[in-house]
Amino acid sequence: MNKFVIAVYVENKFGVLTRVTSMFTRRGFNIDALTVGETESPEYSRITISMSGDGYAREQLINQLRKLYNVKKVELLEDDSIKRELMLIKVRNTSETRGDVLSAVEVYRAKVIDYSMDEMCIEITGDPSKIDAFVKLMIPYGVLEMCRTGIVALERGTTTLLSK
Amino acid sequence: MNKFVIAVYVENKFGVLTRVTSMFTRRGFNIDALTVGETESPEYSRITISMSGDGYAREQLINQLRKLYNVKKVELLEDDSIKRELMLIKVRNTSETRGDVLSAVEVYRAKVIDYSMDEMCIEITGDPSKIDAFVKLMIPYGVLEMCRTGIVALERGTTTLLSK
Repeated sequence: MNKFVIAVYVENKFGVLTRVTSMFTRRGFNIDALTVGETESPEYSRITISMSGDGYAREQLINQLRKLYNVKKVELLEDDSIKRELMLIKVRNTSETRGDVLSAVEVYRAKVIDYSMDEMCIEITGDPSKIDAFVKLMIPYGVLEMCRTGIVALERGTTTLLSK
Repeated sequence: MNKFVIAVYVENKFGVLTRVTSMFTRRGFNIDALTVGETESPEYSRITISMSGDGYAREQLINQLRKLYNVKKVELLEDDSIKRELMLIKVRNTSETRGDVLSAVEVYRAKVIDYSMDEMCIEITGDPSKIDAFVKLMIPYGVLEMCRTGIVALERGTTTLLSK
């Protein structure tokens, strides 16, 4: 079971996201994370999906996705693609732990974006393994809440997925 | 029509994302952006949905979502919540425009994360209006490709959605 990332360009039409996620459900794939957002073209949204599975099933899935109505382009992202994720994490703020948390924030080039007597909210961006490491580091200090966007990814160089 | 953000905690069970997005389709709501990612609890994922609609329809939708199988919690995010989005944007790199692009990157506290003779890939994080402004600024320099994660949001203070 390998982890991989698929980018899907879809027309901004009603119900297309449901058609795409249904395809994963029907084929028995579980989605680890998913983002849908605007692209360089107002007609299209880009769905980025992180998932695990073997190579054969993956190829089948990509072929099926390509046949879906309102789906313009489906590409498997190359391993050396630029992958980034954003996380907001709310951590307990006490006089004993504050210094340690702020040092970690500095080293990870994260940012404190909300701060009160009892908690701070930290924003961090990076590849998923960096985010995982930061979460692990914060657990002993008391993680109140966190949310992660899931991966967005672009391939290196001037090639774009739509022009491929 | 107001824009609003809904956070949905779902059990990490097969097909739950499709059940959630289908509810939007059935009720005639279009999703502007959506993220699904890990949370502070390994049992749950958090789906953050940005959409537009009037207040009455929105309340109905939230009530329907609460009845769905494997859905643990549904909350409308307050207006003063911390909202963040991540974008990767690939812009043409020429000797004429390079200086201008790099100045904008500095002012917006963005980061160049890939750089070649012909293009640079920029990572930027912020609230959606900041991201919109940066996109507008980059268009004259030649936007090759971009992808946005959609919003993630946390409420301020120590309250967490799950404990609400």
